[in-house]
Amino acid sequence: MRKNSRVGFQGELGAFSQEAVRQLLGEDVRVAPFPEFDDVFRALDRGDTDAAVIPIENTLAGSVHENYDHLLHYDLRIVAETNVRIVHNLIAPPGVKFKQIRRVFSHPVALNQCLDFFHSNPHVEKISFYDTAGSAKMVIEEKLEDAAAIASSVAASIYGGVILKRSLEDDHRNFTRFFLLASKKFSRPSTKSARDWKTSVVFTTKNIPGALFRSLSAFALRDLNLTKIESRPLRGKPWEYLFYLDFIGREDDVRVQKALGHLSELADFLRVLGSYPKGK
Amino acid sequence: MRKNSRVGFQGELGAFSQEAVRQLLGEDVRVAPFPEFDDVFRALDRGDTDAAVIPIENTLAGSVHENYDHLLHYDLRIVAETNVRIVHNLIAPPGVKFKQIRRVFSHPVALNQCLDFFHSNPHVEKISFYDTAGSAKMVIEEKLEDAAAIASSVAASIYGGVILKRSLEDDHRNFTRFFLLASKKFSRPSTKSARDWKTSVVFTTKNIPGALFRSLSAFALRDLNLTKIESRPLRGKPWEYLFYLDFIGREDDVRVQKALGHLSELADFLRVLGSYPKGK
Repeated sequence: MRKNSRVGFQGELGAFSQEAVRQLLGEDVRVAPFPEFDDVFRALDRGDTDAAVIPIENTLAGSVHENYDHLLHYDLRIVAETNVRIVHNLIAPPGVKFKQIRRVFSHPVALNQCLDFFHSNPHVEKISFYDTAGSAKMVIEEKLEDAAAIASSVAASIYGGVILKRSLEDDHRNFTRFFLLASKKFSRPSTKSARDWKTSVVFTTKNIPGALFRSLSAFALRDLNLTKIESRPLRGKPWEYLFYLDFIGREDDVRVQKALGHLSELADFLRVLGSYPKGK
Repeated sequence: MRKNSRVGFQGELGAFSQEAVRQLLGEDVRVAPFPEFDDVFRALDRGDTDAAVIPIENTLAGSVHENYDHLLHYDLRIVAETNVRIVHNLIAPPGVKFKQIRRVFSHPVALNQCLDFFHSNPHVEKISFYDTAGSAKMVIEEKLEDAAAIASSVAASIYGGVILKRSLEDDHRNFTRFFLLASKKFSRPSTKSARDWKTSVVFTTKNIPGALFRSLSAFALRDLNLTKIESRPLRGKPWEYLFYLDFIGREDDVRVQKALGHLSELADFLRVLGSYPKGK
């Protein structure tokens, strides 16, 4: 990616998505925060940004289903993935001490990942806010003396807050997987790295018995390992589903090509969403 | 179910879950509204209620993932299902005319299912509220003169509101599937109806290549049709998943017994969540 490329993400500056941008592209890109996921996709689709970083699943909360729907709606490419360890910090305006805290603001998913903290501190009220980093920004800018936010350490430093407690999350095996998206014009440098690759596809099956089993046979019979399956409702066909699959393999590999050819015989609809090096 | 049984659901009186209770059990049961889904499960688990009705998936919004997690956590039985057609109505306090409306309150999922209405009425602001029926209750009790709610027609009649517009939803193929849950002590009347039955299970696969494909073979090789698959993250094992399957067949059918025996060979963990007549 060129220097000064503009990379969209959802949330305020200091969001975990921004950490994913840094892991994927380093420090030399410019970030473009948007209020909604749909805005992030639309900006890239229109060419207003050069790339986008979106969360797709969290090891505790599960898939970000809205983004699966956007991947179908916008015809973009997944070109990389990364996993970010989610560390929740209790962040307050400078000068505010822990014993003053009576209210904690954050995104509901973050609040729900820190329930042990709230059980141990029953005098502290948890208050839902639209964004983790946005909650840090708000408590610091408003200089609230009885409030803190749960957000990333990057958010604390961007907005000049103080970290009162680190690693508030109940379960430290808390990771979010992010995709780097580019427009379909994106041409991948033809690296032949030894690393594993993954490919993501979305398809619908014909409405026949055993349809999903037959579809998976396209991969299983070629020893291609699935790493994820996600189903989403198919619009206009109640009780039918779209399936999103991730599997180990690169789109231009012969075995993968055969598997996708086989799947297309069995599917009513099939699209490859992208092929990318497996994240660490 | 006995007369005067107490059936829990999430939301305020007039929620779509209450319509599901009526479809499943008629008018003779008492309903017990709870603020959160977890409260509904816990009340049944403790014996404070006799049954519970929970939404599990919507044809537009997808699965209610939180309830999949509760089905695993609480050891209850699914004993029936029903599909409720979701009709969203614009409800205002008596005397308020449509041209006065500037704000519309409802649950975010309901607001998102009525986007055409908001596009045609750009002067009307949509405001997220915790509950559909709760929003009707609030605008009516507060006698707001510039506001309406999006909720069921039952909510309008319970709280004495006026329906200004009916069927506001963008897509009329809007159905929610509900489960009726009972405690494990529940003994099913041994009806031998000709209707199709469904069985729901949850399992984890061994961490080996082709594990999901092999698991589905237990059903496909016996011509048992899957109607739904849902994956959820497996706590404590990042990037591994629980699978929830619904298939056509009754738990005490020999073929189903063989399939479940076969699946248990392939699974690390398997639990039958219930067997119930297929909803209309």
